[in-house]
Amino acid sequence: MKFRRSERLVDMTHYLLDHPFQLVPLTFFADRYGSAKSSISEDLTIIKETFEHRGIGRLITVPGAAGGVKYIVKSHPDEAHAFINEMCETIANPDRLLPGGYLFMMDILGDPQVLKKVGRLIASAYSEKSIDVVMTVATKGIPIAYAAASFLNVPVVIVRSDSKVTEGSTVSINYVSGSSKRIQTMGLSKRSLAQGSRVLIVDDFMKAGGTINGMVSLLEEFNAAVAGISVLVESENAEGRLVNDYVSLVRLSDVDVKEKKITVKPGNYFDRL
Amino acid sequence: MKFRRSERLVDMTHYLLDHPFQLVPLTFFADRYGSAKSSISEDLTIIKETFEHRGIGRLITVPGAAGGVKYIVKSHPDEAHAFINEMCETIANPDRLLPGGYLFMMDILGDPQVLKKVGRLIASAYSEKSIDVVMTVATKGIPIAYAAASFLNVPVVIVRSDSKVTEGSTVSINYVSGSSKRIQTMGLSKRSLAQGSRVLIVDDFMKAGGTINGMVSLLEEFNAAVAGISVLVESENAEGRLVNDYVSLVRLSDVDVKEKKITVKPGNYFDRL
Repeated sequence: MKFRRSERLVDMTHYLLDHPFQLVPLTFFADRYGSAKSSISEDLTIIKETFEHRGIGRLITVPGAAGGVKYIVKSHPDEAHAFINEMCETIANPDRLLPGGYLFMMDILGDPQVLKKVGRLIASAYSEKSIDVVMTVATKGIPIAYAAASFLNVPVVIVRSDSKVTEGSTVSINYVSGSSKRIQTMGLSKRSLAQGSRVLIVDDFMKAGGTINGMVSLLEEFNAAVAGISVLVESENAEGRLVNDYVSLVRLSDVDVKEKKITVKPGNYFDRL
Repeated sequence: MKFRRSERLVDMTHYLLDHPFQLVPLTFFADRYGSAKSSISEDLTIIKETFEHRGIGRLITVPGAAGGVKYIVKSHPDEAHAFINEMCETIANPDRLLPGGYLFMMDILGDPQVLKKVGRLIASAYSEKSIDVVMTVATKGIPIAYAAASFLNVPVVIVRSDSKVTEGSTVSINYVSGSSKRIQTMGLSKRSLAQGSRVLIVDDFMKAGGTINGMVSLLEEFNAAVAGISVLVESENAEGRLVNDYVSLVRLSDVDVKEKKITVKPGNYFDRL
């Protein structure tokens, strides 16, 4: 059965979006539709232009026998600006205030449309680095890790403060929580992470960075490398920050419990691009 | 600027895939591309046919002034069969065996391509029900919950066994774990779930169903309704199962620690369709 161009465009768009960062040989599409490679090339030019024009991402063409086409997530700066400003407004809503000056964030972290955008932005920021795996710590970092990993098409590993029998043997470390100065433990299942992996660490919130620093130490135990660190929200007034090189989407400047005022600014996302 | 049909098809495919279960008015697309509604209708016919033919999903057209088009995830039975058989093989790998007869599953639960398919299948099974929210319990159910929720385009709420200061006030219940018969506690942040919500409960693993039964009890406290229950793996030899109406992708029949043999069969996914 032969396919018309219009049908190929729809199916190829779906296929590429579903397999980011994966090199797809042109022969794969040629066989799938019983079409000539020249027609597939023309289709890909249309998709590439539309993806770029609409800020969906980029199509990279690798020539040669081992070549093909690869979809890479790359969000448009306008999209990033709009979304980050929207997030600042959402987080500044005083209804989020909890006793002790904490902010309720589970509605944001539970919304798949928000997470998709967070994942797109984080994946875009690291789209030129080679990332093997996304790491986070349970529980609230998990949705962000999966969102970024699904756009980078790499696995997620989850560090835990409690070790479970269902994870097998675990490598654990002690670390000092930056803000509370308490000694805590975190561990990662031994078979979760291959030696030499290039790891993107993500989390929902970073204050002094003790938890993230703990994950960095844990990576050393696995002979794995930090390829990047990204958080949804960083706290501006963190004394003695332990982590310097990171990408944040949003910066929490001030929480005034008495006046019920939360001051939020864009993070360093754009400085790094 | 006017768009050619080929560009419209690529962008509309991306937009619809990105907004499942959302009614998009035809005027939205007409304005977006400066095209006549009749052209948009023709585009949608092509997309609809390709989505159905390729097992991507369905496009539902709602006529009238308040109408539009809606993309609904619906996986093809062939895709479901192939994936479930693949999962059975993957899970039956004796390397998964941990002391005590537990199975290591974090590689599966960390793989975004696997999760996408799990999410597609679960969302497909409930695509005709009206689901407001997906609920799970920390930690291992979380990736499955987000995968299903992203295809259903609804929020996720996470039940926890420990309550955190960052969640605000919590409704907690005690429940009896079906297998260990121990009394445990689980809680959900009060503002996570609106009264009357129709909730799809998901988890990675179900033995007797104590944890899922706990979530059902918790929903009663919120005056919310169970719209469905779905698990990736159910254990076949569970005495005194507490949950009857559920959808499972895979069924664990037997774990023979001595012979290092794991027996896995497809779950009841197809019986329910």
